[in-house]
Amino acid sequence: MPRYKILIEYDGTPYAGWQRQGNAPSVQQTIEEAIFRFSGEEVSSKGAGRTDTGVHALGQVAHFDLSGHWRGDRIRDAMNAQLRPAPIAILEAHPVSDDFDARYSATKRHYVYRVTDRRAPAALDINRVWDVRKRLDIEAMREGAAALIGHHDFTTFRSADCQALSPMKTLERLEIHRHDDSEIWFEVSARSFLHNQVRSMVGTLKKVGEGKWPPSAVGDVLEARDRKACGPVAPPGGLYLTKVDYGSKAKQPVDDLAEDEA
Amino acid sequence: MPRYKILIEYDGTPYAGWQRQGNAPSVQQTIEEAIFRFSGEEVSSKGAGRTDTGVHALGQVAHFDLSGHWRGDRIRDAMNAQLRPAPIAILEAHPVSDDFDARYSATKRHYVYRVTDRRAPAALDINRVWDVRKRLDIEAMREGAAALIGHHDFTTFRSADCQALSPMKTLERLEIHRHDDSEIWFEVSARSFLHNQVRSMVGTLKKVGEGKWPPSAVGDVLEARDRKACGPVAPPGGLYLTKVDYGSKAKQPVDDLAEDEA
Repeated sequence: MPRYKILIEYDGTPYAGWQRQGNAPSVQQTIEEAIFRFSGEEVSSKGAGRTDTGVHALGQVAHFDLSGHWRGDRIRDAMNAQLRPAPIAILEAHPVSDDFDARYSATKRHYVYRVTDRRAPAALDINRVWDVRKRLDIEAMREGAAALIGHHDFTTFRSADCQALSPMKTLERLEIHRHDDSEIWFEVSARSFLHNQVRSMVGTLKKVGEGKWPPSAVGDVLEARDRKACGPVAPPGGLYLTKVDYGSKAKQPVDDLAEDEA
Repeated sequence: MPRYKILIEYDGTPYAGWQRQGNAPSVQQTIEEAIFRFSGEEVSSKGAGRTDTGVHALGQVAHFDLSGHWRGDRIRDAMNAQLRPAPIAILEAHPVSDDFDARYSATKRHYVYRVTDRRAPAALDINRVWDVRKRLDIEAMREGAAALIGHHDFTTFRSADCQALSPMKTLERLEIHRHDDSEIWFEVSARSFLHNQVRSMVGTLKKVGEGKWPPSAVGDVLEARDRKACGPVAPPGGLYLTKVDYGSKAKQPVDDLAEDEA
């Protein structure tokens, strides 16, 4: 059967995450129902990142199979028509070879976490940023973040219900910069992330940014390999899956699997 | 009584505009109720721009009087605490002299109108942008927009229920630029605007951007001084009151009043 790859933007606020749930609407279910309404086919889609409840996507990728042959732009437009009024948009759709797997073929995931650190709460960006209401020290957070880059046991930054086989991950990038006068972006990239890893890292770095922990604490809690050592987990609304890379696989440690549960 | 000036950000989606209404929640009423809850005083506030239903603000200005003397940052924090969970944030509050009038002292209003012109609908920005779903020609819109700059009779771009005494306004700026690959910003400035003026101009320019009208049509419909000549009014969710200027008044035509109803 022909396989299709779709690029997806969504507002995660009304959804119990990407993954189908028995008792709550998910992005995956909403997308599969839209596919059914235009094609008459019940499909099972697979997403590159199992984004959590309330987490957004600007560039989630998924694949599914249909018995019919369709042009990519027809699939994109038909799905968008069927998705209304859900806050989910199909940005692109393309036929792909049947060995393409949105999840297992991914070589890198990119996330952004948005924090606003002005005194006033968020108004236009409720559920879109974490409003910490106090000024954060970017330099101190950068100094702390340096300890997280590279191949580590991220047990400290992993939620208790993480299903990954190993806590070993390679964090390739964690850049922190002021996006505008009152907003900070944490940009992270890795082949994959543990469940709540990004939000756990951001919550820990916020402790450093507000001066409650020294920058050296970040390396200490990483080395503790103890969930209890982690800072509070940052709320989901600030997190965006921005991009997923495919193509030639870089050499990866064998324990650095493609499951992503950020 | 001491007078206070506040700088306000809000998501206009759930409100029937700035102005108090008998039968629907307004930003003004929500703010006045928050002031009452911390001060015990029933105040009447006045806003610089009477933003319409669904129109947002990043920098609305209002003033009100309280019998008590308060520090500005205390007013800001107390109002923000009382406003939760409304999508309204007080960015700044300052005591001002009692001849300051948020509406009549304003010398210039600045608005931005956001359009997304990608093929896919808006998902994260529902009610935040106008998604026109087709590529717009920026150069053609700029050429058309040039006819609107200056002192004109804007009857064509004025809603039937506009309460301004005169249709004469001076449009000081109408800049159109691509904000990113799929988003266009219309940035407009004037001492004041007629009711629906910005959205009527954007709706007309969109006709030019999609190639349905030539750029010269903009000047023609302006000169027609006829509401029926106007393009469709752009939806409210794309419009933001970004900034209000005060201070030394530039020389203005006497018919260019300070009432703003964009």
